[in-house]
Amino acid sequence: MTFELQQHLAVQAGNVETVLDRLTSAAALSGETVRPPRLLAAMRHGALNGGKRLRPVLVLEAARLFGRDDAGVLQAACALELVHCYSLVHDDLPAMDDDDLRRGQPTVHKAYDEAAAILAGDALLTLAFDVLCEDIVHADPAVRLRLCRELSRAAGIGGMAGGQMLDLDSEHRARSEAEIRQLQSMKTGALLRHACRAGAILADAPETDVDRLTRFGELIGLAFQLADDLLDVEASPETMGKATGKDAEAGKATLVGLWGAGKTRQELARLLQEAETLLKPYGAKARTLTAIAEFIVSRTN
Amino acid sequence: MTFELQQHLAVQAGNVETVLDRLTSAAALSGETVRPPRLLAAMRHGALNGGKRLRPVLVLEAARLFGRDDAGVLQAACALELVHCYSLVHDDLPAMDDDDLRRGQPTVHKAYDEAAAILAGDALLTLAFDVLCEDIVHADPAVRLRLCRELSRAAGIGGMAGGQMLDLDSEHRARSEAEIRQLQSMKTGALLRHACRAGAILADAPETDVDRLTRFGELIGLAFQLADDLLDVEASPETMGKATGKDAEAGKATLVGLWGAGKTRQELARLLQEAETLLKPYGAKARTLTAIAEFIVSRTN
Repeated sequence: MTFELQQHLAVQAGNVETVLDRLTSAAALSGETVRPPRLLAAMRHGALNGGKRLRPVLVLEAARLFGRDDAGVLQAACALELVHCYSLVHDDLPAMDDDDLRRGQPTVHKAYDEAAAILAGDALLTLAFDVLCEDIVHADPAVRLRLCRELSRAAGIGGMAGGQMLDLDSEHRARSEAEIRQLQSMKTGALLRHACRAGAILADAPETDVDRLTRFGELIGLAFQLADDLLDVEASPETMGKATGKDAEAGKATLVGLWGAGKTRQELARLLQEAETLLKPYGAKARTLTAIAEFIVSRTN
Repeated sequence: MTFELQQHLAVQAGNVETVLDRLTSAAALSGETVRPPRLLAAMRHGALNGGKRLRPVLVLEAARLFGRDDAGVLQAACALELVHCYSLVHDDLPAMDDDDLRRGQPTVHKAYDEAAAILAGDALLTLAFDVLCEDIVHADPAVRLRLCRELSRAAGIGGMAGGQMLDLDSEHRARSEAEIRQLQSMKTGALLRHACRAGAILADAPETDVDRLTRFGELIGLAFQLADDLLDVEASPETMGKATGKDAEAGKATLVGLWGAGKTRQELARLLQEAETLLKPYGAKARTLTAIAEFIVSRTN
């Protein structure tokens, strides 16, 4: 990735951070009722300082591909990120993945308590739909409704939440390659897929392009999970800012476990090639999305 | 309440149950991904066999007051009930109110496990927005978006979730009457208020009527909580189908605790009178809503 592109992605992630900060500030949430300060603080702990902001940046870049780049897209991108953040807060809970660290910081239930973490996740998820329904997101209410429904489906029992359930149930049990692919396509794939798709929808792209971006999102979702599993095997907790080796410890079957690192890297290269081919028709305009795909495949943390 | 009205409310609650059953069936949720059966079963455990269905029935009756009574209103009413059900599933968790029984049945985390209960709550909340965005709810997408935003606000940090946080934080701590009123208006009041308001909005009622129904919702929300606190002091676990005496045990300050049962009953009577006065302009058309207000004030379980 060129220095210029790195700078661009850092600026985009910074814009996401700024809007998330505003959306979870007491002022933005003002009204006739009070906002319990400890709950708001727990929500902000779960939503801010979020690193690369991959999902919202994908929304922004997919929309830019079709010529839209404004505050409304950023708003929609942040709604998606709120859903991602809620899922991390809940996944880290003792009853779920039981993680004490996230991005090198105490997880929300460690920094606050379990009740605050459950409610902070609930409130972040709830806020996402408020944020996504705002006029600024798209002039056509029907498009905003479509985005709400698609976000709900990507996040719900047929998507992210269902995938987390399959993942928990797969501990200490043999899983076939097909079963692992299914759970990963739901747990991490559904939101990444939706991010690329939502960007195209926000920019009023023709449906064939929406479909193309959807497939691109699926490919980078697969690649993201493979790279994540590789890092869980190979990286140190210091590099990752969270515990590693957790899959093996929990007895979770992964594709890396089935294939080994060599075949996994081959598959990553294949996925990247297919993703790049998909974006070919867009020429130089797609170089940021292509660079993101390359980054996902080769990331080291 | 007349036998005829009781029958009518039972039919309405039955209609809500039927639609909730359909909305959480594997067939309704079909698509390209799988629905983990154990998560779906946990969601259904939390959403079905739900008793009186007060909130969705309020939506239905408020809409009927302005001449709308169809499958779209029922759909919107069920979206609200999904949010209520998710909140019960999460509130019952060990880290929150730690309840083993709900409506005489094991709570979701008892019947399944904590992880399943957290995810079932998350998935019910997520599903609510999908359900509310459907075309059938209202012909005008802008009205559906308004309902989504208002539901999000009633359920989020400034409403139900925030109220639950205040309630947890109020254990073993003296609270003023104003603080108790604030937390109750958020924890239980916000959804009851929204239910009445949403019905009026769904039926395209003039804004002055939306405001009137909103105030009616606030009044019955206050009455509901006072009656609930009275029952927690006076009723048996057998009658309630859940543990009682929990407020005192948890050291939670309530208005009943501050006022005593006598003054509480006086205030309930005053609230009922104000609610009935609000509905006077609608004449006989409002008799079901009036009967619901009477039921809330005098309920014994």
